[in-house]
Amino acid sequence: MEPRHTQDDAPLMPDRFHEECGVVGVFGHPEAANLVYLSLYALQHRGQESAGIVSAKDSVLISHRGLGLVADVFSEEIIRKLEGPAAIGHNRYSTSGQTLLKNTQPFVVEYAGGGLAVAHNGNLVNAVELRGRLQERGAIFQSTVDTEVLIHLIAASPGKRVVDRIVDALREVRGAYSLVFLTPHELIAVRDPNGFRPLVLGRIKDAVVVASESCALDLIDAKYEREVEPGEVLRVTAAGIESFHPFPPAPPTRCIFEYIYFSRPDSRVYDRSVYEVRKQFGRQLAIEQPADADIVIPVPDSGMPAALGYAEQAGLRFEMGLIRNHYVGRTFIEPQDAIRHFGVRVKLNAQADLLRGKRVVVVDDSIVRGTTSRKIVHMVRNAGAREVHMRISSPPTIGSCFYGVDTPTPEELIASSNSVDAIRDFITADSLGFLSESGMYSFLQSGQHNGFCAACFTGRYPVPVTDQGRTHQLRLFEARDR
Amino acid sequence: MEPRHTQDDAPLMPDRFHEECGVVGVFGHPEAANLVYLSLYALQHRGQESAGIVSAKDSVLISHRGLGLVADVFSEEIIRKLEGPAAIGHNRYSTSGQTLLKNTQPFVVEYAGGGLAVAHNGNLVNAVELRGRLQERGAIFQSTVDTEVLIHLIAASPGKRVVDRIVDALREVRGAYSLVFLTPHELIAVRDPNGFRPLVLGRIKDAVVVASESCALDLIDAKYEREVEPGEVLRVTAAGIESFHPFPPAPPTRCIFEYIYFSRPDSRVYDRSVYEVRKQFGRQLAIEQPADADIVIPVPDSGMPAALGYAEQAGLRFEMGLIRNHYVGRTFIEPQDAIRHFGVRVKLNAQADLLRGKRVVVVDDSIVRGTTSRKIVHMVRNAGAREVHMRISSPPTIGSCFYGVDTPTPEELIASSNSVDAIRDFITADSLGFLSESGMYSFLQSGQHNGFCAACFTGRYPVPVTDQGRTHQLRLFEARDR
Amino acid sequence: MEPRHTQDDAPLMPDRFHEECGVVGVFGHPEAANLVYLSLYALQHRGQESAGIVSAKDSVLISHRGLGLVADVFSEEIIRKLEGPAAIGHNRYSTSGQTLLKNTQPFVVEYAGGGLAVAHNGNLVNAVELRGRLQERGAIFQSTVDTEVLIHLIAASPGKRVVDRIVDALREVRGAYSLVFLTPHELIAVRDPNGFRPLVLGRIKDAVVVASESCALDLIDAKYEREVEPGEVLRVTAAGIESFHPFPPAPPTRCIFEYIYFSRPDSRVYDRSVYEVRKQFGRQLAIEQPADADIVIPVPDSGMPAALGYAEQAGLRFEMGLIRNHYVGRTFIEPQDAIRHFGVRVKLNAQADLLRGKRVVVVDDSIVRGTTSRKIVHMVRNAGAREVHMRISSPPTIGSCFYGVDTPTPEELIASSNSVDAIRDFITADSLGFLSESGMYSFLQSGQHNGFCAACFTGRYPVPVTDQGRTHQLRLFEARDR
Amino acid sequence: MEPRHTQDDAPLMPDRFHEECGVVGVFGHPEAANLVYLSLYALQHRGQESAGIVSAKDSVLISHRGLGLVADVFSEEIIRKLEGPAAIGHNRYSTSGQTLLKNTQPFVVEYAGGGLAVAHNGNLVNAVELRGRLQERGAIFQSTVDTEVLIHLIAASPGKRVVDRIVDALREVRGAYSLVFLTPHELIAVRDPNGFRPLVLGRIKDAVVVASESCALDLIDAKYEREVEPGEVLRVTAAGIESFHPFPPAPPTRCIFEYIYFSRPDSRVYDRSVYEVRKQFGRQLAIEQPADADIVIPVPDSGMPAALGYAEQAGLRFEMGLIRNHYVGRTFIEPQDAIRHFGVRVKLNAQADLLRGKRVVVVDDSIVRGTTSRKIVHMVRNAGAREVHMRISSPPTIGSCFYGVDTPTPEELIASSNSVDAIRDFITADSLGFLSESGMYSFLQSGQHNGFCAACFTGRYPVPVTDQGRTHQLRLFEARDR
Repeated sequence: MEPRHTQDDAPLMPDRFHEECGVVGVFGHPEAANLVYLSLYALQHRGQESAGIVSAKDSVLISHRGLGLVADVFSEEIIRKLEGPAAIGHNRYSTSGQTLLKNTQPFVVEYAGGGLAVAHNGNLVNAVELRGRLQERGAIFQSTVDTEVLIHLIAASPGKRVVDRIVDALREVRGAYSLVFLTPHELIAVRDPNGFRPLVLGRIKDAVVVASESCALDLIDAKYEREVEPGEVLRVTAAGIESFHPFPPAPPTRCIFEYIYFSRPDSRVYDRSVYEVRKQFGRQLAIEQPADADIVIPVPDSGMPAALGYAEQAGLRFEMGLIRNHYVGRTFIEPQDAIRHFGVRVKLNAQADLLRGKRVVVVDDSIVRGTTSRKIVHMVRNAGAREVHMRISSPPTIGSCFYGVDTPTPEELIASSNSVDAIRDFITADSLGFLSESGMYSFLQSGQHNGFCAACFTGRYPVPVTDQGRTHQLRLFEARDR
Repeated sequence: MEPRHTQDDAPLMPDRFHEECGVVGVFGHPEAANLVYLSLYALQHRGQESAGIVSAKDSVLISHRGLGLVADVFSEEIIRKLEGPAAIGHNRYSTSGQTLLKNTQPFVVEYAGGGLAVAHNGNLVNAVELRGRLQERGAIFQSTVDTEVLIHLIAASPGKRVVDRIVDALREVRGAYSLVFLTPHELIAVRDPNGFRPLVLGRIKDAVVVASESCALDLIDAKYEREVEPGEVLRVTAAGIESFHPFPPAPPTRCIFEYIYFSRPDSRVYDRSVYEVRKQFGRQLAIEQPADADIVIPVPDSGMPAALGYAEQAGLRFEMGLIRNHYVGRTFIEPQDAIRHFGVRVKLNAQADLLRGKRVVVVDDSIVRGTTSRKIVHMVRNAGAREVHMRISSPPTIGSCFYGVDTPTPEELIASSNSVDAIRDFITADSLGFLSESGMYSFLQSGQHNGFCAACFTGRYPVPVTDQGRTHQLRLFEARDR
Repeated sequence: MEPRHTQDDAPLMPDRFHEECGVVGVFGHPEAANLVYLSLYALQHRGQESAGIVSAKDSVLISHRGLGLVADVFSEEIIRKLEGPAAIGHNRYSTSGQTLLKNTQPFVVEYAGGGLAVAHNGNLVNAVELRGRLQERGAIFQSTVDTEVLIHLIAASPGKRVVDRIVDALREVRGAYSLVFLTPHELIAVRDPNGFRPLVLGRIKDAVVVASESCALDLIDAKYEREVEPGEVLRVTAAGIESFHPFPPAPPTRCIFEYIYFSRPDSRVYDRSVYEVRKQFGRQLAIEQPADADIVIPVPDSGMPAALGYAEQAGLRFEMGLIRNHYVGRTFIEPQDAIRHFGVRVKLNAQADLLRGKRVVVVDDSIVRGTTSRKIVHMVRNAGAREVHMRISSPPTIGSCFYGVDTPTPEELIASSNSVDAIRDFITADSLGFLSESGMYSFLQSGQHNGFCAACFTGRYPVPVTDQGRTHQLRLFEARDR
Repeated sequence: MEPRHTQDDAPLMPDRFHEECGVVGVFGHPEAANLVYLSLYALQHRGQESAGIVSAKDSVLISHRGLGLVADVFSEEIIRKLEGPAAIGHNRYSTSGQTLLKNTQPFVVEYAGGGLAVAHNGNLVNAVELRGRLQERGAIFQSTVDTEVLIHLIAASPGKRVVDRIVDALREVRGAYSLVFLTPHELIAVRDPNGFRPLVLGRIKDAVVVASESCALDLIDAKYEREVEPGEVLRVTAAGIESFHPFPPAPPTRCIFEYIYFSRPDSRVYDRSVYEVRKQFGRQLAIEQPADADIVIPVPDSGMPAALGYAEQAGLRFEMGLIRNHYVGRTFIEPQDAIRHFGVRVKLNAQADLLRGKRVVVVDDSIVRGTTSRKIVHMVRNAGAREVHMRISSPPTIGSCFYGVDTPTPEELIASSNSVDAIRDFITADSLGFLSESGMYSFLQSGQHNGFCAACFTGRYPVPVTDQGRTHQLRLFEARDR
């Protein structure tokens, strides 16, 4: 029998923002690749389309990458071949299939400085411009990924040490990046000055671990140490860890959506428990958007913590009114005599015995296009609910992300051109309430809403995106070589 | 990309009882096989090792069976070939692999009465004796499944109509059976007089549906009608449904474990909501086994409803202290420098930020060998919990099941030879409490504990099992042809 | 990388008769299953759709069967599990796919006499009648294969010893059978009194081997001993080999097509070298059907020996004018702007440099529908041949086979309703010559054409086939359960 | 059922030189990719490890590459996506597995000149030096293949037109190359001035086809036109074909091993029929190395034409004394009680009835390590041959190839350190004869041995190979990133 997997939020994926990557690195452990492999598995929710690991043994980099889930890409035999005391890994979410194997990370190259591998979470907003400039100088590009631009800059740097070349190169780029580099003898981790994407530091015995989220540390029984700071460069060698802050300081603008939806609830991200922040979203939502109701139910699983917080705050009973089918595959064969709300129904079932005659608060984490919410409201109502009150534990999403998250165009975002009332009508709920932007920051002691990027809610982009970057983004590259 | 699946309770499967089958039948719908396919998918939790569908078109039975999950066994092309207005299906849990494809159901045979297919959930306790007798008369056996005995009895019956032959045959067998038969022109559903295994009846437009649980009806948007009664025979033809009660009445002894663990929480089984019964288990457990604690957490997902009930009754905060990884495969590659509690850790993560310093009630549905509970207690304590109080929403399991459930031998059941205190010590909990046998029936209006089989808790077997049946069970058959 | 295989005569399969099975048995060797596996691989040309092995260890029969080539069905791990000093195996050619896994052999059953496995090459012409009679007595049938009828007869026999039951059962059947049976302690091989299908006996050290053709013995380095005689029953036990002739003697009618096409050229079949017989066909063909030509070329690979014989006898130069592509798969993607003779061209290429301006004799072993011959004549002529003279090393095929070979209906056989001249015109050859029926026997010292079944050439069926057997053959069974 | 394939000379692959690539290009046909796909299939013998196709549609290059045989890498759906009127393709033989997907060709890059794809057959002997120099200038390398060096040189060229850049770049490289380039609007084919590797030009209607061998043209029904000349550059655009000879002329040194073994016998290579040249090798071998024998048998299939020539010249009977099993997979499971000559025996069977008592000439195309020849001699003798006379239709191989062929080190070549007598003793033949170097050129009208590279026989390398190139070859690159 083959291994089996699911995507927890597969039910709602078509109607969610998508994280683009998970990265991880281990230095100083005899089974580095195996630990990286397990860490990638813990970070599987950050990218399901491809996975890769590169290990360093003596003067050699050994790599394996493939399309699919971590458990499918790696076998015991492959892990055994990824020898050496250091390794880095990458999970990628991407929009298309087989032909993009070349875009799979970590990238591995050889250049004048020797062998170099890199895993990248984020997006460089000036990649198009840089790529053009590099090509003028004779560079060739084999992928459509912005990370390749970075490697060219590193190779072109006059720096002597790899870490100097990397810093040199990063001075030319703008945007979001949590990066893990591997050379035959060192591991270098960098987080952009804004700290858009998360990155944490941990230890397992004497070995150093960096990973996108702390849940990766938990699985391998590593000790969480701290967040890698925005703008920090960590160089890990046999001699230990060195920390630099070579970039001009910038106001931190960590992605708030990691708290809303991306990160696993059991992770620490930005030095806070994601689960606790989400519960607080729910509590605040109950204060801002109360409902005269009998029970509170989450849209599983992502709406769970906020629903618990809402129910607690509102003093309402929490129930699992929607039950997930855990054997979810990509597609199911629907009869021609179509079944109502089939797409959601194969993933969720509304409990009639529980919902019948009730006034129900349904808590979800976000609304993107609105189509899934509409189906859920229908299902809950058809199961007998007397009233359906939709509560969303984030503000309306109105803008695309240019910092490493796959988002629909603004035209596709229902909230970009519709009022809350119009959305409520579209999803056929009795009432609809979003968390306010300021309420979103109630989890901060200060209560002050700064330190975070909330561009997708506000349209205020902390790092400017040129029209070229906006329009072309990855597309331009892909146009050239599908 | 391949479809992806998971097994919801895969985390704990090695330490759970296993349901052995799900059955379903649809009569009178132009897309019968497609509806059966979806129903099997909804019943996937009842058996993951093989799946099969047989459809009836004109005078022909068309079958497809295979090893694996429903979504893997059937493609759109295969479903298209399973033409006709009637079909039956089967999911099977089995202990071994490829070589047992021959045991995959539905069985399809040709005999003097024509073509016949059958799907069986249950176990015939006198199969060994009957098999011996049939062989004396010249019968040959190609599988190691008790259902084949039944088909021989049907073929040997002097009855004219298929339904008469079936009743005739069933008069000779003892044990548990929810059966769905298909001939080219009729569908026949039977539930044994004790009603050991569940079976429900529903409608989708004019078509008739029978299925192990009501969640199968929900997915295909069929209307739940009622439980098929213990001892009832339903014959469905183009002329409509006929109902018979041809067997001597017996006291109903429905399997209580369907409520404890097997059935999906969103199903109606034995005309009650499984979710509601489980919440009541939890409430009663809180009354019987209170704990001086700060929070209540479930072992996800099976412990969820009981934990909600416990928390409600006890007035304690409910939290998701254990988070599941939803990308669970069969096996993961563990480093040689082994990780603590690896087997559970790849599936569950304990939330340190939540548990730190807390007195925690952990609610699970059952304890089989105790090894998983022990790992969970360790994980919760390592995450910082001050006290760990394990509460089990069923009585201690002390006996094997002979009515269609795969159970360990009594020697493997920790509760068969250990006191509650000894088990508590083994699992290293601060306290351990089980639901009492009588408390288990608190969900009944009467409060009287009858109408159910609880042999695995009590050792009282409602249908006698001979030593031969006990010792040999399926084993004897398998010994002959692995 | 996966193993790779081809079908040697795949090029021409759509226009060839098809052998239906290869059988093999080994007794008395510690690695019996491994030897059976290799023997099946050597007999792969006799059946490519499924393969199976059953071994006997102590009182247990262990089986593995699957769809596909031997090398795909069996892994090292599976072979290891097929323990014990005796084993039998089977290759099967069948017309349809997955759903007929149930028809895969060897069959394994348990009946009053214990465990029994059987592998069958041939066809029972009275299977339909027997099946009907057995069903009247209460028998159930799970496959559509005539072998199942035989097992029922064995189970119904009053005989004490297995060998007595088998002989008993075989007295009731008519038709073609080379059978290998396995019980936990003995191997029994039987060839029908007419000796339709081949079966040879060999030794590897102290172990006994039976197989359809001697090439199976060669691969495992076993010593060829002799043909199992028509009507002979061999019982092999730890005590040695016993030979019986329990059936009334019948005139032997060995299938002549084994010499024409089915058997591998390097096999001894009916105690003669297949290669030598084919060369003699070619020599005789040159005498009967000379051609005024420059070179002789075979249709590879099956026409090779006859072409060598033809060239030798005619004193003409032998050349490889048609070259095979050895990387042949099932299907290739043809452009919409279709390529001439694509179906043959992907498998064969005509050598223009060699053929240009030549008068060419093309030697093939048989013509079935004529469509392939037509394409080959076109290709050879387009490559520049001045004249194309087709010579066939067998007589025109006019009748179907009912003795275990998959043949088209007479309507599809071009020679059943067309003169040689008409066929020549259809295939567009300059001349066409078949071997005469009497000439076909020139390889016999006596020169007398008896001892062989040539019904497909003559329409004279040595064992009568009833209309029922003729019309229904396997079809009837399959109609009931596709 | 899966497609099935074989490797014709798989039997002897472990003991053969290996071709490294096949290339093909089609310009001006609406189904260019489909024709390229079929051409690659016809060239499958030149490389079985990976395959790739790139098509050009409007301004876009569309690519698909994968590990495995052509028929496995491409599906109908993939071919459909490779739209456009021009395409190029590549088959690659490589020594290792999955991790080298990055080395799969055609390469596709984007550089200042736009999109460019390239397929390469050959080897650049100064790639290591060039790679070092390019890295100094900031180039990064993602593969371990010399072709990547070439692309960097093209990108760095100041040339305006792509063809100028290519010529510019090629002026810097030394070694063997038959190259096919594709841009969105043109196809460029180049053969190195020495003409080491073959390349032919053909037409299919108005479309232009280039391919390694003419058998690719035959399969797609294209007309063979001529050899692309050594040093010739062909630029194919919508305006037609332009031909250049931009390089200083060099004495042609076409690889003679294409005639000995690499090319398909039905191909025209270097404007001669491979089959005819091989037959002449056999005739000359019979003159130089006669044998007092009864029959001549080839080692199939590669020894076939030479054996026919030998038999013709010697007036001896030609027979198929060794028969191939056509269902050859990669590996077969051998019993522990090992079978003699198992490795060869699973692929070839010696015909005892034919060989018994005979004096046999065995004709093979080359001897590399001698181990396979030894097994063949044993098999033929064990089958009863009285005398075994091995005749090799090429001179002893004593040197490695640095021009695009995978060869063992000289230490592994038996002839590099052993006399013919010693080799004869090793392989246990009664006599052994090789074709003389001068005799090898008897197929030339002039009889003069020039115009060919025979370095593997003579040790005289027409293009100098530095120690660095010799020692490091591809290895150095691979050391850095396995």
